[in-house]
Amino acid sequence: MQGSIKYDDGKVFLEEVGPKHTSVRYELKEVLHSKRSPYQLVEIADSIDYGRMLILDGCVNVCERDESNYHEMIAHVPALLHPNPESVLVIGGGDGGTVRELLKHDTIRHIDVVEIDKEVVTSCRKYFPYLAASLDDKRVVLHCKDGVEFVRRSRSSRYSLVIVDSSDPIGPAEGLFTREFYEACRAILDENGIVVAQSESPYVYPEVLQQVYSLFSEIFSMALPYRIVMPTYPSGQIYMMMGLMNVQSMTDRNSSRLRNFFNSHTQYLSYVTPHLFESALNLPGDVLRLLKK
Amino acid sequence: MQGSIKYDDGKVFLEEVGPKHTSVRYELKEVLHSKRSPYQLVEIADSIDYGRMLILDGCVNVCERDESNYHEMIAHVPALLHPNPESVLVIGGGDGGTVRELLKHDTIRHIDVVEIDKEVVTSCRKYFPYLAASLDDKRVVLHCKDGVEFVRRSRSSRYSLVIVDSSDPIGPAEGLFTREFYEACRAILDENGIVVAQSESPYVYPEVLQQVYSLFSEIFSMALPYRIVMPTYPSGQIYMMMGLMNVQSMTDRNSSRLRNFFNSHTQYLSYVTPHLFESALNLPGDVLRLLKK
Repeated sequence: MQGSIKYDDGKVFLEEVGPKHTSVRYELKEVLHSKRSPYQLVEIADSIDYGRMLILDGCVNVCERDESNYHEMIAHVPALLHPNPESVLVIGGGDGGTVRELLKHDTIRHIDVVEIDKEVVTSCRKYFPYLAASLDDKRVVLHCKDGVEFVRRSRSSRYSLVIVDSSDPIGPAEGLFTREFYEACRAILDENGIVVAQSESPYVYPEVLQQVYSLFSEIFSMALPYRIVMPTYPSGQIYMMMGLMNVQSMTDRNSSRLRNFFNSHTQYLSYVTPHLFESALNLPGDVLRLLKK
Repeated sequence: MQGSIKYDDGKVFLEEVGPKHTSVRYELKEVLHSKRSPYQLVEIADSIDYGRMLILDGCVNVCERDESNYHEMIAHVPALLHPNPESVLVIGGGDGGTVRELLKHDTIRHIDVVEIDKEVVTSCRKYFPYLAASLDDKRVVLHCKDGVEFVRRSRSSRYSLVIVDSSDPIGPAEGLFTREFYEACRAILDENGIVVAQSESPYVYPEVLQQVYSLFSEIFSMALPYRIVMPTYPSGQIYMMMGLMNVQSMTDRNSSRLRNFFNSHTQYLSYVTPHLFESALNLPGDVLRLLKK
């Protein structure tokens, strides 16, 4: 999964070293930025088909054409299932996209963003201002720290949502995929709290999806997976896993709050609709069998 | 969009020349078959990540790992919307996958399959027997003919469903994307008839999706798009477009026939579930806006 932008035939290409034995190549107009931070290689490039991309260690992390799919779904699905989200912890998310979406919820009064890599924030402020500007909102506090450490030391805090907006389980995000970490997350969630984390694609790493589902089922009252269409991620999709403190959130999801949110935000949402919110929770038969649901 | 299997670095690779400036490379175990027919280059290869693939002019057409997604959705969505499908015309579909799914409907008594390229049928009989065996069912008649011509000469026939299971709108399938062709399809549909055709991905060819939607809206009582997750297709998804003779089919979709079908076929279906059937009809906000719905 480690790679970097490669040059081929005199033209510029990004070769995203995909899972195992499949890879995707984007022809690039320009490489805008390339800097090795203490944690990873941070690159920003302009691809012809998919627009500007943030590339971490050779993997597409954020991309202009489909960032709304990801950021809307990682933020609004848990935020709309929680009956009254007030305080949110975002681990990773230094690009600011998840925070941009969270700020659309009036009930949310405080957001801690814990991004380990300052270079991600710096480069996104320059090249993705429409994402990173959200980090300057007065409701947001940015911490350039290790997320695992931050959660461990936050025992006295109470969050409605913990959103793990990380890269893949290999590299700087490795500690974010352990039992210890999610047990620490549970300890800082309120009684209706929800944690959400990416859990890969069933076509690429079915074992990761199984493991995260199994882990969340043990730690939380309910593990609830959902799916996001992501053309620039391997196999064109990513699954998210929610851990719910209170199963009631799931059964109460047709609330007037949900309807009101969509009614008042339609023009500010690119991807998600009320129907799509429901659809994302409906998994294909083979994935249900994989999870033995 | 034209290409073929390429060899690189002493290892075997397929380079699928994707849309415009993006491509996907599958590392292959083995190329099993390669023959140029009068219509196209027909290749069959075994990829490490996605299993056996039928590759037409360098584009993945059918793939072991996700063929169920495609074949179940192209067949069951229209077959379950029609109140009583009896006779079906499949244009293309020489691999037999769509017919395999159609045969799961007891009401369907006759299926004409019109595949222009005999070589597709021959090679699939050998390398995809679990798909092509369906073509030997006594309810099926295989015609190795041009689909456009077949429809034009079928004025006296009445079909419940016309399923256009074709390759992309460039190459041998070009005639399947014209107004004349779909008007001829309408003429052979029964009063509740449905035509379905692929209409590309909104991330790759948004203009094709728009054009097919607009064309179907003019020709039929209702144009109804739906989406299928397809990891081995460009951008990881494909949209299908249905043209309905009778809008009632859409509003009557929660029929007992639909419930009975799923109850009695769950163990024979890999991808589709009743929820997924509904979800497929729910499109993302940006696609709805693209179609000005």
